[in-house]
Amino acid sequence: MIRILLSAALLASAASLSAQGLPTPTPAPSSPPLYLPTVPAPVAALRDRALDDHYAWDIVEGLTTEVGQRMGGTAAEARAREWAVARLTAMGFSNVRVERFALPVWTRGPESAEILAPFPQRLALTAFGNSASTSPAGITAELVGFDSIADLMAAPDAAVRGKIVFVDHAMPQTQDGSGYSFFGGPRRQGPSIASRKGALAIVVRSIGTDHHRNPHAGGQQFEAGVQPIPAAALAVPDAEQLQRILKRGKPVTMHLTLVSTVQPGESGNVIAEVPGRDRAAPILLVGGHLDSWDLGTGAIDDGAGVAITTAAAKHVMDAGRPLRTIRVVWFGSEEMGLFGGMFYKDLHGREPHHAIAESDFGADRIWKVDSKFGKDREAEARALQAALAPLGIVPGAIDKADGSDVGPMIDGGLPGVGLSQDGTHYFDIHHTPDDTLDKIDPAQLRQNVAAWTAMLAVLSGGIEPGPKQPKRR
Amino acid sequence: MIRILLSAALLASAASLSAQGLPTPTPAPSSPPLYLPTVPAPVAALRDRALDDHYAWDIVEGLTTEVGQRMGGTAAEARAREWAVARLTAMGFSNVRVERFALPVWTRGPESAEILAPFPQRLALTAFGNSASTSPAGITAELVGFDSIADLMAAPDAAVRGKIVFVDHAMPQTQDGSGYSFFGGPRRQGPSIASRKGALAIVVRSIGTDHHRNPHAGGQQFEAGVQPIPAAALAVPDAEQLQRILKRGKPVTMHLTLVSTVQPGESGNVIAEVPGRDRAAPILLVGGHLDSWDLGTGAIDDGAGVAITTAAAKHVMDAGRPLRTIRVVWFGSEEMGLFGGMFYKDLHGREPHHAIAESDFGADRIWKVDSKFGKDREAEARALQAALAPLGIVPGAIDKADGSDVGPMIDGGLPGVGLSQDGTHYFDIHHTPDDTLDKIDPAQLRQNVAAWTAMLAVLSGGIEPGPKQPKRR
Repeated sequence: MIRILLSAALLASAASLSAQGLPTPTPAPSSPPLYLPTVPAPVAALRDRALDDHYAWDIVEGLTTEVGQRMGGTAAEARAREWAVARLTAMGFSNVRVERFALPVWTRGPESAEILAPFPQRLALTAFGNSASTSPAGITAELVGFDSIADLMAAPDAAVRGKIVFVDHAMPQTQDGSGYSFFGGPRRQGPSIASRKGALAIVVRSIGTDHHRNPHAGGQQFEAGVQPIPAAALAVPDAEQLQRILKRGKPVTMHLTLVSTVQPGESGNVIAEVPGRDRAAPILLVGGHLDSWDLGTGAIDDGAGVAITTAAAKHVMDAGRPLRTIRVVWFGSEEMGLFGGMFYKDLHGREPHHAIAESDFGADRIWKVDSKFGKDREAEARALQAALAPLGIVPGAIDKADGSDVGPMIDGGLPGVGLSQDGTHYFDIHHTPDDTLDKIDPAQLRQNVAAWTAMLAVLSGGIEPGPKQPKRR
Repeated sequence: MIRILLSAALLASAASLSAQGLPTPTPAPSSPPLYLPTVPAPVAALRDRALDDHYAWDIVEGLTTEVGQRMGGTAAEARAREWAVARLTAMGFSNVRVERFALPVWTRGPESAEILAPFPQRLALTAFGNSASTSPAGITAELVGFDSIADLMAAPDAAVRGKIVFVDHAMPQTQDGSGYSFFGGPRRQGPSIASRKGALAIVVRSIGTDHHRNPHAGGQQFEAGVQPIPAAALAVPDAEQLQRILKRGKPVTMHLTLVSTVQPGESGNVIAEVPGRDRAAPILLVGGHLDSWDLGTGAIDDGAGVAITTAAAKHVMDAGRPLRTIRVVWFGSEEMGLFGGMFYKDLHGREPHHAIAESDFGADRIWKVDSKFGKDREAEARALQAALAPLGIVPGAIDKADGSDVGPMIDGGLPGVGLSQDGTHYFDIHHTPDDTLDKIDPAQLRQNVAAWTAMLAVLSGGIEPGPKQPKRR
């Protein structure tokens, strides 16, 4: 997920961020009532059946094993779309299709970093998306370190010009992932700020909460008018090593190779539906994103998201026919700039949607539900909270919701739901080679599916038993 | 640490292992008495002062920061020896010197693995020491998988010939690290067995207990007469991925590049002493190994070991003058075949040693003490157990001890002590890029130093307050 990246980049240039501070948080959620409405028996039964789910595991196991990494716009993502169409069709979904779009595709090449003096050694790092490329021979320069973006901004240009900048930070683990906004600054704003000051390149401590030699990739956009420079993340142990080296007070020389290319390419959103009894009723949209970063196999980001939401829709399909159409979208090329979400918004954003929701924060359990349906639909928001509470899910706000691809549409006024996953360990793995299937706990994945199934059961307008579906995978 | 590797290789060829089973474990420890002798007040006081140790942290922080990786026989290991001589001299040790030896030096080059069919994707791996080299272009072949060494041995040669062999296993976490013997077979015996059967190359699941994309390096020796083949470890998530791919039942093709070189080189043992009052008394030898694998900075293997044992000797020095000389050895080139330990044995193994002991199993707390002094020194063994029990250390055997470099000398009859570290998490990190300073818990490191200090206090024959030592780092 990269939502915060893009919205921060759109909202404010680094210079104005300095003047204004970061964007103000959304208003505090209204308190839930002391009790919630009774849950209809069919909703509870469908929710509890989904606790035995196997669809989600089968999807994320298959996608990560048979495709693996699927960076947006690449041949691997194209194979993933084919895989998705075949699987969604085999599961019995209707109107399975791909909506294609063009985009620039940034591709990682050889990359390495080496301290030449005073203590020769290699450091583990990986380029950020849209990093400028060095030549294959790399660059060599003195390194200058800063403890924060603020320190970099306060430094005179002369202290930075012609050097490689290092920026540290201290991102903590949080359940709601809120640290990603502030502490992600070195990745999102750092490269543009360093370039404005005349830096040759920038390396930052990974926006991550682990201590493994796996650097965290991530997108960043150079501000308009700024000269792109090579920009990369050091693994957390390597950033700490560099801090120790800098503390010795001797000049530090780094050799940095970050080769990359940009080519035109194609991506697309894969769409599938459970047709509703009332074709004129506003639809429900759920989904995740199909693309991943290139270093891991994209299990938690976001194979789990497409798997969970597709499994939930399948449980509704297995139970019968909902009043409203449920549309499942596997968005393309989210990581490099919400391309799939923006394309869907352009194409479908004016169609009526009863609610939209995305799963893009890992595979750990859902702990809170937020929604934003508007004042006249408070009863529906409370019914949703009631159906989820038995899964150990806290009733949250009813005046806000969030999502990565669907975020701009919610901001634009469409009704939305936010099922918050426990993100305590999400940034241990996020955007690293370690984002692999073994990081998913099947029991927590099933709780997710049950929560999403209950949400669809509540919002879909009632499910009527239909002709028995043939058993398909 | 690689002890088991070498002794297993020396004890039995893979073929005879099959016939005889693995080496019989050493006899069960004799039970400790119901109570232990009183601990002399000076021993207890010295032990408890060492719980405030900072020497060990300073050494391992300095060595891993200012030198970093220091593969045996390389220029980096030579820098590490210079660093060691300077530090040991600055700390006030006597007779600081290097005893040099020649050895062949295996050096890792470019390495990668890629599944070409049926599901194209890269896998994370790293070559084992003494792996044969592929050409820079690599090799491409069909892959054949086995769940164990036994399955590989049982397979007809025709099923293996001309293929790349994959061997899996299921090493569990254990406190005493005993799983490393049996479950390490795919690394130690696997390459020779696969080569005898005509395999082109072998990849095995890392001998590790983590789930990170960091493959575990390690030494292995091809048996006499066996054609060396390329041999490597897959990271655990990648081995599991390969298992899933193989389970689809389609032919699997792998492209494998494992480039390496072998050159003559030089290594050495760094030696320092705390001179005893009685120069004729048999000495105490403690130490660890200076070299590391090339992927991490060798913090737990074995920067911690040299740091802990040196710190303990320094605490004795700070307290006064022991009866016996304490000799601290930072062994060179342990990882590739106990070269430093063998060289020390050749040079000094016939000199009288009162006890020898090595720290080479990480930086987690000591949980058990074993010793092997002989029947006439049981009182000394019990005094040692008594001095350590207040640190939460279990009295173990008095008829066995172990160690990596010092192992062959203990086997040869020298008295030895084994201070067992908690190895539950050791093989999460062992021989991977993740062996870095941040994995060391300073509190557990200090408990180690206190245990080693107490051991020296008990065995050194009594410490007489000497002229106050000048305070040195």
